[in-house]
Amino acid sequence: MNHKFKIRTDLAVEMEEDIHQKESDLQGIRVKQKRIPEGNISVTKVEVISEEGEKQIGKPRGVYITLESPELARQTEGYHREMSAALSCYLKELIPENKQPTKILVVGLGNKDATPDSLGPRVIDNLCVTRLIDDEVGNPEIFSGNDQYEVSAIATGVLARTGMESAEIVRGLANEIHADVVIAIDSLAARNSSRLNSTIQISTTGIHPGSGVGNHRKGITKETIGVPVIAIGIPTVIDAATIVNDTFDNLIEILKMSGENRHKILQGFTPEEKYELIKELIDPELSEMYVTPKDVDATVKCISYTISEGLNIIFT
Amino acid sequence: MNHKFKIRTDLAVEMEEDIHQKESDLQGIRVKQKRIPEGNISVTKVEVISEEGEKQIGKPRGVYITLESPELARQTEGYHREMSAALSCYLKELIPENKQPTKILVVGLGNKDATPDSLGPRVIDNLCVTRLIDDEVGNPEIFSGNDQYEVSAIATGVLARTGMESAEIVRGLANEIHADVVIAIDSLAARNSSRLNSTIQISTTGIHPGSGVGNHRKGITKETIGVPVIAIGIPTVIDAATIVNDTFDNLIEILKMSGENRHKILQGFTPEEKYELIKELIDPELSEMYVTPKDVDATVKCISYTISEGLNIIFT
Amino acid sequence: MNHKFKIRTDLAVEMEEDIHQKESDLQGIRVKQKRIPEGNISVTKVEVISEEGEKQIGKPRGVYITLESPELARQTEGYHREMSAALSCYLKELIPENKQPTKILVVGLGNKDATPDSLGPRVIDNLCVTRLIDDEVGNPEIFSGNDQYEVSAIATGVLARTGMESAEIVRGLANEIHADVVIAIDSLAARNSSRLNSTIQISTTGIHPGSGVGNHRKGITKETIGVPVIAIGIPTVIDAATIVNDTFDNLIEILKMSGENRHKILQGFTPEEKYELIKELIDPELSEMYVTPKDVDATVKCISYTISEGLNIIFT
Amino acid sequence: MNHKFKIRTDLAVEMEEDIHQKESDLQGIRVKQKRIPEGNISVTKVEVISEEGEKQIGKPRGVYITLESPELARQTEGYHREMSAALSCYLKELIPENKQPTKILVVGLGNKDATPDSLGPRVIDNLCVTRLIDDEVGNPEIFSGNDQYEVSAIATGVLARTGMESAEIVRGLANEIHADVVIAIDSLAARNSSRLNSTIQISTTGIHPGSGVGNHRKGITKETIGVPVIAIGIPTVIDAATIVNDTFDNLIEILKMSGENRHKILQGFTPEEKYELIKELIDPELSEMYVTPKDVDATVKCISYTISEGLNIIFT
Repeated sequence: MNHKFKIRTDLAVEMEEDIHQKESDLQGIRVKQKRIPEGNISVTKVEVISEEGEKQIGKPRGVYITLESPELARQTEGYHREMSAALSCYLKELIPENKQPTKILVVGLGNKDATPDSLGPRVIDNLCVTRLIDDEVGNPEIFSGNDQYEVSAIATGVLARTGMESAEIVRGLANEIHADVVIAIDSLAARNSSRLNSTIQISTTGIHPGSGVGNHRKGITKETIGVPVIAIGIPTVIDAATIVNDTFDNLIEILKMSGENRHKILQGFTPEEKYELIKELIDPELSEMYVTPKDVDATVKCISYTISEGLNIIFT
Repeated sequence: MNHKFKIRTDLAVEMEEDIHQKESDLQGIRVKQKRIPEGNISVTKVEVISEEGEKQIGKPRGVYITLESPELARQTEGYHREMSAALSCYLKELIPENKQPTKILVVGLGNKDATPDSLGPRVIDNLCVTRLIDDEVGNPEIFSGNDQYEVSAIATGVLARTGMESAEIVRGLANEIHADVVIAIDSLAARNSSRLNSTIQISTTGIHPGSGVGNHRKGITKETIGVPVIAIGIPTVIDAATIVNDTFDNLIEILKMSGENRHKILQGFTPEEKYELIKELIDPELSEMYVTPKDVDATVKCISYTISEGLNIIFT
Repeated sequence: MNHKFKIRTDLAVEMEEDIHQKESDLQGIRVKQKRIPEGNISVTKVEVISEEGEKQIGKPRGVYITLESPELARQTEGYHREMSAALSCYLKELIPENKQPTKILVVGLGNKDATPDSLGPRVIDNLCVTRLIDDEVGNPEIFSGNDQYEVSAIATGVLARTGMESAEIVRGLANEIHADVVIAIDSLAARNSSRLNSTIQISTTGIHPGSGVGNHRKGITKETIGVPVIAIGIPTVIDAATIVNDTFDNLIEILKMSGENRHKILQGFTPEEKYELIKELIDPELSEMYVTPKDVDATVKCISYTISEGLNIIFT
Repeated sequence: MNHKFKIRTDLAVEMEEDIHQKESDLQGIRVKQKRIPEGNISVTKVEVISEEGEKQIGKPRGVYITLESPELARQTEGYHREMSAALSCYLKELIPENKQPTKILVVGLGNKDATPDSLGPRVIDNLCVTRLIDDEVGNPEIFSGNDQYEVSAIATGVLARTGMESAEIVRGLANEIHADVVIAIDSLAARNSSRLNSTIQISTTGIHPGSGVGNHRKGITKETIGVPVIAIGIPTVIDAATIVNDTFDNLIEILKMSGENRHKILQGFTPEEKYELIKELIDPELSEMYVTPKDVDATVKCISYTISEGLNIIFT
């Protein structure tokens, strides 16, 4: 068994916990943590600033901000006002402001007909776009008190329905309207079930293949689109291997406590190896499945509104 | 009152009836009619072939095909098989075939959330796209037994939601995927209530501003997009002025028969003048309204399926 | 031509204007008016208290409250907070409170797939139901801080889809859960286009046949259901005859001003007769149509939320 | 560890495989198998005919028919014609025919907003109801060539949205319209991932608590509703414990083959005990989760249509 296994973690806080343990070892990475008592929100900001940092953490240079609150998964009537405010605050910092107005294309990734993957399109549904075409002259105008941002939006749909990769659609439209920056919203697959629906991750490095719930998108990054891409991701599912792995750990723990020898079943494996081993053992057809909470429709409805309100605070 | 009034007719059969009356006068126009007994379908093909023809009919050079069947408005379980077949047959003739494969972008115009304007997006929902991205090489491929057409599709949404004109979205995507031809599906406003939901019009001259149910699109034509645009339109609403006008005509008729003099109320007006007069008399806020049958949801569901099946017959 | 024509008005304010003119003549009717400066809301409360009042106004005994605001039709991000507050305040007065808790069945009438008729089902979508079944004992419980009301909700759908009248569904469920009162929400057909989407009418006399947008319901009243029915109605369409009638009036007005004699075309008709005449002149197929604003999807989305919030203020 | 563990199997074929092994031991159970070459469909009919049979199989007396086809999960344009035909054929046998017409209430269980649980409501959307209220007399009539069945339909929604158990809604409506039989359609949780979306199970014993995807329904049976309930169930998810269990088995198998001793980790447990052990080891929050294929939206759309067509064949 080879040792090149690498746990795929899509969420910065998960990374950060690792980092914390070995903080002294890490060059080229800056980590800041903060708590916002209102809304019970923890903020973690990870900056990868050099090639060495990239190697350490396995992620490209950029800023990774994670907003976390156990209350986000809780369904409320309405939405999470404090989280919207926090999102607007941290996101605004990341939007390049060298142009006046800044032309923003907001992109909702995912499949509106598959509930846990519908978060992106739902955000677009509640977004206030401020770009408008002046009928006389035919030029775009801003239709809002805030003329700093000219905002357009699209839900890209899925390859099987459009015949086009999300990256193609985003590139075609960003070219057409001369967007300065793309903000892409996507559902993610979490590794840890406790993160499910409780975390919003923002990054300046775009969307990378395979990080989302659907397998319906290529990378959406500055390289593929041509302008900076800010990604907003929310874990709404966990992958099948994760829950097997977590259950297995529980089993080992119990066997240990019972004083038996059986717990040594997988001794000699690092956690990464164990995870990959389990992934291989899982039925191949299961790799095309995801694990999702039964009340995912209510949660996705509420979180998508929290995010669209966060964006609307900036844009209007 | 000036005499430059011109009745806007979006439907070729309506035009054709006019033409028929004055057939001898018209230069530069060819008209053919046909009946398809199965499905009780009348087919009218109008070709505008010269500048003189353009002047006579007030429409640009091109081919205008109208498929009409009283049964189309009738709701059935399922859809209208014969109409799908007829549509596929006449539409196929109009698709330019100089390339192998021909890259087609099918575009659904209109607002999915406003029932009578939702026909375009609904067609896209049931369409078989055959373009697929090969994961290894990253090149587009055709995923169908029929490799003559490489089909992509998009529902463009509405300006108020996206901040982009439908024409911008179509042009951006057509450029990105190097489409050879665009097929655009739209709901139309009919002048005559008898045409409502009973007619499919195909034309090679694209979509012109103001012809649709929504006022949310600029022209989508070869000039604005860069490649030929075939339009498929179905009248799902009539505009408010039309029903006032028609009722008024009924009133005049009755007054005439009663031998009274009152029917002269609008004598001295040509029909066009009368229509425009009524349009001006209508409350300004009514001009932003449309008239729609109560069962429009069932009809639009059925007709959209009839059209998507017509396209699927060609593409798969 | 007979004189038994009677204008059907579904909206209390329209009635009230008539009443105002002849106030002294009316026995058995009490009218109060009020203005709420916040939200620019006019409130009219009409009480029909005797048989004589019933005759005068052509409506059964009961309370009719109309909340009107020009701003209601205006689309805002979010909803109309002041109108929700006003609705909650006036509605609460009408709910019988002799039981503790009061069991309320909220009913959304109309067709969710036909935009202007979708208001009722949309209100249900955003409503906080507070009835919950206790898993252990199997008894209903109240899941809310407010234990005065035990709230259930249903969207009844349409006859063509369910095979059951809305009245049958409401009666069956009200019986099953021993509801004390039904609150029914419905889209209405307005007579006057200025009332469109700007008025909320509340009444204690239930829903009467033919008052709504769809023709898909029999009366939902204390007589048909067995418990008191409070109706909340919002005009989202106008019927075809109304816009013909209004346009006709504009025409007459202009002809009068021009000093011509033509305006006498319909002299000798009362307004009611003229309206009914026009209704007869309208194409029979037009009577199955309604007139609706082009942006009805945005308006209905916003107003339905205004209403559900008004109910949630009372119930939670 | 106690020995009262019992594997919950919702699918008759899974039972049947067990039965086959021990066929001779089973009293009070009749099993028939059949193949339909068209559509590659296997049919299994299990009849539990005595108390002894009930004990043997852990299910109440009644008929259990399973239609299975690997092709059902395959997405096609359109639907699965042969499966619709097979369903109609076997279902028709189970509908009691002592009345003329037989009044049928078809019930779609589940949450339309959670994709894998939306199968029931989607079937209702495409169903032809044939009951209609005669406007003159107000009596129900049959609106179809087939006057053997008077069909109504309802999607019950979910408790959190309606405040009413599905069982309450079904009972209230069945009483109101004097239904002779209820047909209830539901998504199921499968134990074995190979059964996912490839099986339709019909039974005369109704819906039992906990068998479905959502936990939002009490039993819907002759006992709770008052008339016979025929259940149609389709497994669209598997529960989390199942995939852990299956993966675990794969691991044990590999360890055995490697000649190591580690595979004895769970020796001494029966399969049932192992399954329950794993269920206990799974994170409690995971028990509120399900595992679902990524393309569940396309599959559910297609299968729901297959089922509604199967019903329409009988009713129209």
